[in-house]
This record gives sequence, C-alpha cells and structure tokens, in this order.
Amino acid sequence: MRQYIYGRNTVLEALKGNKPVYQVYLMKNVKDDKIIGLAKMKNVKVNIITQKNVLKDLVGQVVHQGIVAQIDGYGYYSIDEILKSIPKNKQPLLVMLDGLEDPHNLGAILRTCDAIEVDGVIIGKNRSVALTSTVAKVSTGAIDYVKVAQVTNLSRTLDDLKKQGFWVVGCDLNNSQDYRAIDYNMPIVIVIGSEGFGISRLVKQHCDMNVVLPMTGHVTSLNASVATAVILYQVYNSRHPFK
Amino acid sequence: MRQYIYGRNTVLEALKGNKPVYQVYLMKNVKDDKIIGLAKMKNVKVNIITQKNVLKDLVGQVVHQGIVAQIDGYGYYSIDEILKSIPKNKQPLLVMLDGLEDPHNLGAILRTCDAIEVDGVIIGKNRSVALTSTVAKVSTGAIDYVKVAQVTNLSRTLDDLKKQGFWVVGCDLNNSQDYRAIDYNMPIVIVIGSEGFGISRLVKQHCDMNVVLPMTGHVTSLNASVATAVILYQVYNSRHPFK
Repeated sequence: MRQYIYGRNTVLEALKGNKPVYQVYLMKNVKDDKIIGLAKMKNVKVNIITQKNVLKDLVGQVVHQGIVAQIDGYGYYSIDEILKSIPKNKQPLLVMLDGLEDPHNLGAILRTCDAIEVDGVIIGKNRSVALTSTVAKVSTGAIDYVKVAQVTNLSRTLDDLKKQGFWVVGCDLNNSQDYRAIDYNMPIVIVIGSEGFGISRLVKQHCDMNVVLPMTGHVTSLNASVATAVILYQVYNSRHPFK
Repeated sequence: MRQYIYGRNTVLEALKGNKPVYQVYLMKNVKDDKIIGLAKMKNVKVNIITQKNVLKDLVGQVVHQGIVAQIDGYGYYSIDEILKSIPKNKQPLLVMLDGLEDPHNLGAILRTCDAIEVDGVIIGKNRSVALTSTVAKVSTGAIDYVKVAQVTNLSRTLDDLKKQGFWVVGCDLNNSQDYRAIDYNMPIVIVIGSEGFGISRLVKQHCDMNVVLPMTGHVTSLNASVATAVILYQVYNSRHPFK
C-alpha cells in the first residue's frame, strides 16, 4: 500500500532518502525549486495542482504547505492481527492515541512501546499523525517492531475491544484517580489524548476509568510522550513488580 | 544579560515574536531575504559576517546555518541561588543534563521538572542546549518557573554538591541497577546524558550509583525527556507514596 506524506521538510527528506517516492504534488503557487529539482533528479513525477481540495483529499485537513508526496506506506496492522499476535501467556496491553498530532511524540511513544512490551498502538485515520518518515526517524527503529493499527472510528474500536475483555483507561485531567491507584494486571487499552485538547468527548465516554499524574507545579499538562511513558512504566511495574 | 540564538527557524521566530532582538548576524553566503526583510521591518541591525569564526565564537560549535541573533537572555540562576531557594522541609532534588542537545527534550524536561517539584536544573555551558526560544515554547511556560543553572564544569559542580550532602544518581545503561531499587528519600542529583552518547566519562566517575529503566524490546534507549520523566516520577513516588 502507498501513503501520502506532506510538508516541505518531510517530502524533502523522502526525496533525499533511499526509499522510493512515486509522485509529488505541488500547489501551483508553491514554486519550490529544491523540491522540483530533487524530484527531477530522481525521475519522480511532479503534479502541479491548482485546486486546493486535491491535496486535502489526499492528506486531510492538515498544514501541508502545498507539498504532498506519495511513498510506500509503513506497514499497518489490523486490530485482529495485533490481537492474534499477543502471546497466550501475556496480559494484553494496547495504546490508543486519540488525535495525537506531533510526529516527534508518536516516534518517542513507539520507542517506549517497544521497550516495555506494548502489543499494539491504535491511531485514528483522521486528524491524527500517521506513520511518516519523521516518526520513523524519531522512533530510532521502533517503528519496525511496534504494530500500529489505523482505524476509522476509535469509539467503535474501543467497544469491540471491551467485548473482548479489555479495560479502557483514559489519561485525562478530569474525574480521574491517581495513576498509581490502579492494578494494571488485566487486558488494558491506555488512551492518550491530543496535545492540545486531550481525549475527545466520544472516546472519553468509552473509558472505564481515568487516571491522572500528580502535578504540583504551574504547568497544567506534561508532554504527551512523557505522560504516556510514565503511565506505561507504571503498567509495566504493576505487572513486573521489582523484587 | 543578552544571549545568542542560532538557526534559521529560531531566529525567524524571535524576529516574529514580541521580545526584543538586538542584532542579527548573517554569514555572507546566506542570502536569506525573509530574515533580512523581517529584521529591517523591526529596525534590527543586520551584521554581514565574512569570517566563519565570528559565529562560532558567539554560539560555539553548532549547526548555526550561518544565522545568529542576539536577544535578551532567559534568566539563569547560580547553584547557590538554587540551593538557597529550596524549602527547609523539602528533600532537595536537582537534575543535571550532561550534553543534552535537543531543545525539544529540554523543553519537555522543564515541563516535567515544574510538575514534580524539581528544585533546579543544571546544564553545561558547552556542547549543550541552552535556554532558547524553542525551549521556551516547548516548555509551555515552565521555563519561567524552573530554575536553571549553567555551569562551566559539571564534574566540579557534582563534587561541590556531594560535599553538601547530595547523592548523585546517573541514568546509564552500564553497571546499573533497576531504577526502582533505590529509595530516593535523600538529597539527590539525577544525571541524564546526551541523546547520542549518554553520560560523559568524567561525569560518570562522579555518580554514586547508576540506574537503568527495564527495557525488553529492540531499541536500546528511550527518548531523553521520556527517560528523565519516568525516573523523576519514581523519585516523586518514592517521596510521596500513594496511599
């Protein structure tokens, strides 16, 4: 499967890299000599686009800077494939990212997920960062090991997982208990919200419980990849107590 | 005090922002119309530099892209000021960053430090990210609350702190115990190494103990701000057990 990446730097990096780039889409007003030059050099077809909707249809409502490219997709998995790959003797652990936008955060989260036996990461198809070359780079290789599923409807996915015995733990500021209050020795989906807005309303309704990290200072939230890691290590510690 | 920031984006952001920019330094071969235009618009003096060493003298051996600007310095504290500001009834907690390079990591770390009562952060004067506008932005305001000291010699600083009763805990892969093995109820300096190379040899010799996070996957390290946060929350939990 092929996918679309966007933004000047990401497309530039792809054009400079070793993996194939199939097409470049440039808004007519973006006269980017560097992109065009590199594409020419690599025999990549450049499509000059005059209608704004074309790029939006390819990559969604994002800041694409008028530059999109088609490359090989990073391998996504289905939820079923992820569930089937979980060893029988292991408590399942999934992470759902609800609207995460920053590829640096996704890359860092994949790195943490690889480190402590997370069985899969679930991201939404819309309004969410996908597996891009930036994510790959920041993940320092974890992208090749952690299974990622991209789903259309996060709420419905949670419904399905709950039917299969998963508990849904949201990481949210409101109506939450201390993240250390929970015994994570059960099949769990940890839900992390977006950098700016947290967990969306519909997804929040599907959380069985909410946890929050103690914070005694002035800022009101932690970096998303940081908060995810602190909670995931708590899950790990809960399952592998230090003796 | 004034400081120098470098790199196209950082200088651009500073020129676009509300805080004063005093001078811009451009290498002669960098014909950046946007920077020059913005600087003109804001009446900021632009110095065209012909000798490479000039910029290196200002900002050190970094990838400055030929673009440097002078702005108001973010307030640094001395170690003494930090120590004096620690409440008498609190176990002191400092974080030393040995060669950290990524401003996103420093920003995220400041955010975590603000959240859980870290009394101060110590960074080196050389080969290390300093307080820049990017750090400020990523810290979401924490930069205004967490006290940061910039020192010339990290090892000597650790010597001094040890004389004042601090224990030095390095976060390192080698010769380390599980990070949960330690009772952090004592005055502590947590030492975090650089993204690429970890803790430097001399600083490592000053660590009283080393801790490591359990990692069972394929990647060999976590993102620096992530690892810092997991350890800092362990310190917090050790001092404020959940009941």
